[in-house]
Amino acid sequence: MDNRPIGVFDSGLGGLTVVKALKELLPNESIVYFGDTARLPYGIKSKDLVEQYSKQITKFLIKKDAKIIVVACNTATAMALNRLKKDFKNVPIIGVIEPGSKQAISKTSRGKIGVIGTIATIKSKAYEISIKNKDKNVDIISKACPLFVPFVEEGLTNGDAINQVAKHYLSSFKNKVDTLILGCTHYPLLKSVISKITKQITLIDSASVVATDAHKKLQYHKLLNQGVQKGTLHCYVTDLPMRFEELGNIFLGEEIKHLHLVNDF
Amino acid sequence: MDNRPIGVFDSGLGGLTVVKALKELLPNESIVYFGDTARLPYGIKSKDLVEQYSKQITKFLIKKDAKIIVVACNTATAMALNRLKKDFKNVPIIGVIEPGSKQAISKTSRGKIGVIGTIATIKSKAYEISIKNKDKNVDIISKACPLFVPFVEEGLTNGDAINQVAKHYLSSFKNKVDTLILGCTHYPLLKSVISKITKQITLIDSASVVATDAHKKLQYHKLLNQGVQKGTLHCYVTDLPMRFEELGNIFLGEEIKHLHLVNDF
Repeated sequence: MDNRPIGVFDSGLGGLTVVKALKELLPNESIVYFGDTARLPYGIKSKDLVEQYSKQITKFLIKKDAKIIVVACNTATAMALNRLKKDFKNVPIIGVIEPGSKQAISKTSRGKIGVIGTIATIKSKAYEISIKNKDKNVDIISKACPLFVPFVEEGLTNGDAINQVAKHYLSSFKNKVDTLILGCTHYPLLKSVISKITKQITLIDSASVVATDAHKKLQYHKLLNQGVQKGTLHCYVTDLPMRFEELGNIFLGEEIKHLHLVNDF
Repeated sequence: MDNRPIGVFDSGLGGLTVVKALKELLPNESIVYFGDTARLPYGIKSKDLVEQYSKQITKFLIKKDAKIIVVACNTATAMALNRLKKDFKNVPIIGVIEPGSKQAISKTSRGKIGVIGTIATIKSKAYEISIKNKDKNVDIISKACPLFVPFVEEGLTNGDAINQVAKHYLSSFKNKVDTLILGCTHYPLLKSVISKITKQITLIDSASVVATDAHKKLQYHKLLNQGVQKGTLHCYVTDLPMRFEELGNIFLGEEIKHLHLVNDF
C-alpha cells in the first residue's frame, strides 16, 4: 500500500481533464497537480524551453513525494518526455502520446488516422513516430489547430465563430481518415463542434486512456494505494490568471478545493 | 546629442508595430527591443506577475544603456507602468495608454469612445481612468477581445473565421461609439476586418501616436540623437517560438537583422 500521491502536470489547466479521468478510475489515489499558468502556452515555445520547464516541474512534484509522474500535456510529452525519462530514473513517468496512439491503432478500421494538436506537438511528429513504431502500415495525416486552445479558454465552445474555425482546420480530414486523435488536453471540450465536421470519424480523447495507462503502471510497480479512503487533490499553479476558477471548473468538472500559488518559478 | 538607444518592450512581438512607427519618425535613433516571448501572453496574467516581469525587463534595458523606456504593450502599461515610474526614477518611461487616450479624445465627435484590448487591459480600466482624467463628459464602452491576438499570431487576418469572431466582439459597438481605440499592439493588423464591422467609426491605432509621444519626451529631456547616421535595431527575446521570423516580418514590416536570445530570464 502506497499512499503517496500521483504527480500530474500540464502547461495550464487543460491537464485537469486527465485528473478528472484519474479520479474516476482511481478514486482512492491522492493527486498533486501542477499547472504552469504563468508560462503557458507551451505549444508555441521551443523544445529547449519546454524541456527546461518540464524538468523544473518534475523536480517539484518529486519533492511533493509523487510516486509516478503523468505528463498530462501533449506538447510537454512530445518535446520533453524522453529527456525526463533519462533524467529521472527513479520514478515512473508516463505521457499522453503513447496511450493515445495505442487506442487509435486499436480503433482504426481502414488504417487511416488523423492527429490534431498544437503547433509544437504536430511539428515534433511525436504521434507519427509513436504510431509508426507500432504499425508501419497506418497512414497518418496531422494538422496543427492553434486557435482551439484560446477558444476553449475563452469559453467559446459553440457558435458560429468556433464552427468556422473547426471547418477551417478539419474539412481536409473528411473521407481521408476514419479515426482522429484529439492531441491536446483542451480539445475534448470541443468534441461536439469537432464531430459536426468530422461526422462518423472516431474521436480519440486521450484523458481516459491515460488514466488506464497510469493504473497499469502503478499496478506493475506495486505502487497502488489499496486503502479505501477517498484521495485528495492539491493543485499548484504559477499564476492565478483571470477566469481561473471558471476554467478550473470547466476542465475538472468540480471546484478546486486545495489551491496553492507557487511564487519561486 | 545622445546616441544611446531607445528601449522598447512588449510581452512578445506585437510591440514591433511601435518600433516600426519609431523607425519611421526617428530614423537616426537606435532601438533596443525586448520581446518576452517565453512568457507571453501577459493579457491573461495577474497584476503581480506582470509587474514583476516588467521590472525585470526595464532593468535589462537600462543595462543596455536605454535613455528612455517605451512600454509597447497595453497590458504591461495598464498593470505595471505606475510601478515602473516609481521604481525607476532616473529614466523617462512612457506607455501606450496615455497617447491613445489623448488621440481618441481629440478625434471623437460625439464624446462616445470604445476601447478593445486583452482581458487584463480591459479589467484594469486603465483607458477609462486615463480618458476620464482628461474629459469627464466622455462616455466609454470597453470590451475584451482575447481571441484577436491568437488569430493574428496564426496569420489568420482575413476569412470567415476571423470575420465571425470580429462580429461576435464588435457588433455591440455599432451606433454606440464614434471612435474606437485598438488597445493592443496586435490589433492594427486586423484593421480591415474590424472596420468591416465598425464601418464609419474612427479607429485609433496607438503605434504612431506613441512614436510622437516618445519624440516629444526625448526633445523635452534633451535626449534626441542629432546625428544623421541611421540608427540600429537590436532585438532580444526570451524564446525563439515557432513562426518567429514570419511574425517578426508581419509586425516590423522588414527582417529582424540583429536578434539575440536571452537565456537567464
